[in-house]
Amino acid sequence: MAEEGKKEVWEEGSKKIMKTYLDCLPCFLNQALKTSRVATTDEKIQREVLDQVMENLIRLPLDASPPRIAQIVYATIKKITGTGDPYSAIKKKQNELALNFYPEFKAMVRNAEDPLLLALKLAIAGNIIDFGVPKEIKDIREEILLIISSPLAVNDYLAFKKNLHNAKLLLYLGDNAGEIVFDRILIEELSNLGTLKIVFAVREKPIINDAVLDDAKFVGLDKQVKLISNGSDAPATVLAECSSEFIDLFQKADMIIAKGQGNYESLSDESGNIFFLLMVKCAIVGRHLHVKVGDMVLKSNLK
Amino acid sequence: MAEEGKKEVWEEGSKKIMKTYLDCLPCFLNQALKTSRVATTDEKIQREVLDQVMENLIRLPLDASPPRIAQIVYATIKKITGTGDPYSAIKKKQNELALNFYPEFKAMVRNAEDPLLLALKLAIAGNIIDFGVPKEIKDIREEILLIISSPLAVNDYLAFKKNLHNAKLLLYLGDNAGEIVFDRILIEELSNLGTLKIVFAVREKPIINDAVLDDAKFVGLDKQVKLISNGSDAPATVLAECSSEFIDLFQKADMIIAKGQGNYESLSDESGNIFFLLMVKCAIVGRHLHVKVGDMVLKSNLK
Repeated sequence: MAEEGKKEVWEEGSKKIMKTYLDCLPCFLNQALKTSRVATTDEKIQREVLDQVMENLIRLPLDASPPRIAQIVYATIKKITGTGDPYSAIKKKQNELALNFYPEFKAMVRNAEDPLLLALKLAIAGNIIDFGVPKEIKDIREEILLIISSPLAVNDYLAFKKNLHNAKLLLYLGDNAGEIVFDRILIEELSNLGTLKIVFAVREKPIINDAVLDDAKFVGLDKQVKLISNGSDAPATVLAECSSEFIDLFQKADMIIAKGQGNYESLSDESGNIFFLLMVKCAIVGRHLHVKVGDMVLKSNLK
Repeated sequence: MAEEGKKEVWEEGSKKIMKTYLDCLPCFLNQALKTSRVATTDEKIQREVLDQVMENLIRLPLDASPPRIAQIVYATIKKITGTGDPYSAIKKKQNELALNFYPEFKAMVRNAEDPLLLALKLAIAGNIIDFGVPKEIKDIREEILLIISSPLAVNDYLAFKKNLHNAKLLLYLGDNAGEIVFDRILIEELSNLGTLKIVFAVREKPIINDAVLDDAKFVGLDKQVKLISNGSDAPATVLAECSSEFIDLFQKADMIIAKGQGNYESLSDESGNIFFLLMVKCAIVGRHLHVKVGDMVLKSNLK
């Protein structure tokens, strides 16, 4: 699907942002089915969700980033199933599961030749704790060990270290529940560097399995850093929807860490000293980054 | 998705047939996108196809087998793209590619300990030559060698041999272009058994990459057996749409070989001495057969 030489970015005024592709339409329908099954066992309601999501998608302009369309899809699911947070129990399980890993991975980072690099790779690998039913604990642990044994497919580690050296205020944009435990390990490493002030941002309201304030507190991040909500319920950082408090921080921060595909899709062409940390989970994002699905990315947006 | 204990068959009067699942809806949309990209490079037309297919799918009763819904989807693609046979060039390439393999696999069957079993496995493995852009020749050859080195996940070989022993008229329901070269190798083995009369059936009109009469002739099947069209353009054998000549043969045949998922989906509860030969390509069919995606199936419908 990538061979046809399509434009990989969409021009919005003077900006290039990740647009939504035709490939995203069946994917949204798949996500809607998956989520409606989490929300209800009633197949009639699941079907109603799919029908309504298709109604939404028909002739919907694709000149927005995928997370904005995801908002429409998830609002439909909420309306039809009557459930605003279908992933609540799953998120709890993902947080607990990741906390179980904490001691082992924390020790691994402490004993690593380059603790910061390993902590970064772990924070990226933690991004595999994906929405949907959690896998077996053993499987996730092994998957993470496998991922961190691979090199970064996009590796701006040197730029990351250089920027970190000069940074005083770092804004860390979280992504999923569970994954935030790995963010905590990275944040602990960053905190060791001295006077850096770190603010950790989460979504305002539950969407998919994205972390909200309660999740961040549950895994102990409130003890490490200041927590804020970004003011939006997009599964991403859609600045136009974020609170003024968040925007203020976004502009003031010397350095921003943005976790996961959603944050990449929504911020890939924003100005600011952003480092994107993500696992590539779909071919469209992979094409945009010139890497493969399953690759680990640590990318500076200044290049 | 299979854990929820859903009914795996749908009751239609006294019959159990494979119905269409909610999972099939995003899959149809994916197929429509794939095919519209084969038919045209114009993204506006591709989008129009997706929109129209979604219009078709909304509130469409799912109490038909997937191939019947596929007919609706492909009719829409034809109408909007103006192309009735988008896979024409791909089918030709698939036939040529498979003919290149013929000498090697034919020799392998001749030298096998059990030539009939190997020919059956090859005919099943040939079912991986799927719609869409053909893979590299080397990849396909290696994939087939890998597949035939595995055991059959459903293995009714003994019943197959027993039935073959008593059969005089065998109806062979073909599936894809390319794959029919492997059917030819199996048919040559079956022909060695003596007085068995074999009729090979194809679709009436092009749909996806399913074989039609021209394909069967191109790979030399006309020199081995009598060829007929089934009279329908479903990517399957939907008896209600087949010609009376075909139905007559279907009823008279002592034994029927039905290749591929489409034939399984449409005939899984028909009476008749049918042996299904297929690679399992989707989780829904896998669930119905209690096997995994990628498994090889040789299944009698009499059990």
